[in-house]
Amino acid sequence: MTKPTLDQARAVLQAQPFSTMLGTVITEYSDDAATLELEVRPDFLQQHGYIHGGLLCYLADNALTFAAGRVLGREILTSGVTLNYLRPAQGERLIARAAAQGATAKTAVTLVEISAVKDGSEYLCAVGSGTSAKRV
Amino acid sequence: MTKPTLDQARAVLQAQPFSTMLGTVITEYSDDAATLELEVRPDFLQQHGYIHGGLLCYLADNALTFAAGRVLGREILTSGVTLNYLRPAQGERLIARAAAQGATAKTAVTLVEISAVKDGSEYLCAVGSGTSAKRV
Amino acid sequence: MTKPTLDQARAVLQAQPFSTMLGTVITEYSDDAATLELEVRPDFLQQHGYIHGGLLCYLADNALTFAAGRVLGREILTSGVTLNYLRPAQGERLIARAAAQGATAKTAVTLVEISAVKDGSEYLCAVGSGTSAKRV
Amino acid sequence: MTKPTLDQARAVLQAQPFSTMLGTVITEYSDDAATLELEVRPDFLQQHGYIHGGLLCYLADNALTFAAGRVLGREILTSGVTLNYLRPAQGERLIARAAAQGATAKTAVTLVEISAVKDGSEYLCAVGSGTSAKRV
Repeated sequence: MTKPTLDQARAVLQAQPFSTMLGTVITEYSDDAATLELEVRPDFLQQHGYIHGGLLCYLADNALTFAAGRVLGREILTSGVTLNYLRPAQGERLIARAAAQGATAKTAVTLVEISAVKDGSEYLCAVGSGTSAKRV
Repeated sequence: MTKPTLDQARAVLQAQPFSTMLGTVITEYSDDAATLELEVRPDFLQQHGYIHGGLLCYLADNALTFAAGRVLGREILTSGVTLNYLRPAQGERLIARAAAQGATAKTAVTLVEISAVKDGSEYLCAVGSGTSAKRV
Repeated sequence: MTKPTLDQARAVLQAQPFSTMLGTVITEYSDDAATLELEVRPDFLQQHGYIHGGLLCYLADNALTFAAGRVLGREILTSGVTLNYLRPAQGERLIARAAAQGATAKTAVTLVEISAVKDGSEYLCAVGSGTSAKRV
Repeated sequence: MTKPTLDQARAVLQAQPFSTMLGTVITEYSDDAATLELEVRPDFLQQHGYIHGGLLCYLADNALTFAAGRVLGREILTSGVTLNYLRPAQGERLIARAAAQGATAKTAVTLVEISAVKDGSEYLCAVGSGTSAKRV
């Protein structure tokens, strides 16, 4: 198995119309982390003015899957995603850092932390995990 | 506690810029289900031409939270969301049906089923659950 | 695939030393539910006198896996289990009812509800879900 | 809030009849980890001769809750537990290491890794997470 590179991960992300529409970028892709970032726009909010939790779910799903790709190779399927909200997300940017929690040759469990950057300060707003498997 | 009505749920959804940007509508809101629907657009897809899993996560999060609102009243916070993918989602429409699995006076666990409608036929593509609590 | 019968499920449970040590029995095994039950003993409790949550986890894991066996056949592996606690469990008996939430030919997501019977009355104390796959 | 000590954690574990019946001990209790261990007995197995997954669930639940106690103080309730199985567990001992993934003043998400020790060698067999809250 060849581990995908940051450039290859960028190309995958570019090939996702939903991610380009939202403006997601991948800023790190190493053994330690897949880091995805997103500039917050006014149309990302919910009824109380916070960033919509569903957008955090999208970002978690994507980051967890990229992290699994570092572990298992490019041909993977994510079978499940869990996200726990800790604090309302607000600010100008979201950062999702994902990494492996444990893996076998065929499956990986990955973890994600989502932070919001507000007025230049970063704080943790959600944590989660995912399960992915090699495509058979 | 007064249970929110379908009209009130519509107003909440209208007040979510992220949901109006995506075009989510709520089509049922009763004791049995909160049903959210979404017309699929080309910019909702991922790199293989399927609907992005992260969009399903968004829809699950939203449907689970509306279902919890029927159980606990309008002032709630969702603390966690899980989604399990069963089949790639494709087609012209997504339907998310959420309902309570179990609840106390303060917390609710809700379930969601997400179906895709392709060429007029509906098939199940993801199932999940969420936990919500009354805001204190 | 031949669906396992109640007698076959009983034989599997009998072949689990951990389940016979705890006294778990299977009382229903149909398309609608796998129902496992357990008489509560003093050595099942935790420090506040309630039934230990970990025992509920064991029972959930087992019931979810039996339910998946009805869907996918006998040769399965459970890959993940989630349990949400709603109320402290106390009383003389635990009942876990599991059923399918959604499935493909190879994988199943199952749901479980765990009730406690106290002074003859049953109440819901935990709900959860699991993911299982056919052994390849 | 005063963080509970290893001695206090030992006393809590001793006060759990289910844990003393199974023989669970706590071997580390610091900011970095709550570590629980268990000698495997023949009556801990399932029908294929592996350690019963439900026992791993019990151990995960307990370790996750002790870890949350380091973060939030002694008066906590665990609301949910998830465990993902990576490999069949066998051998002479189980070790569960739990630590915080993220927390607020009132809630904590904790992670757990469960390893089995077989013929003196340790290998990872399950990973999971839990959510706990301060008792109100």
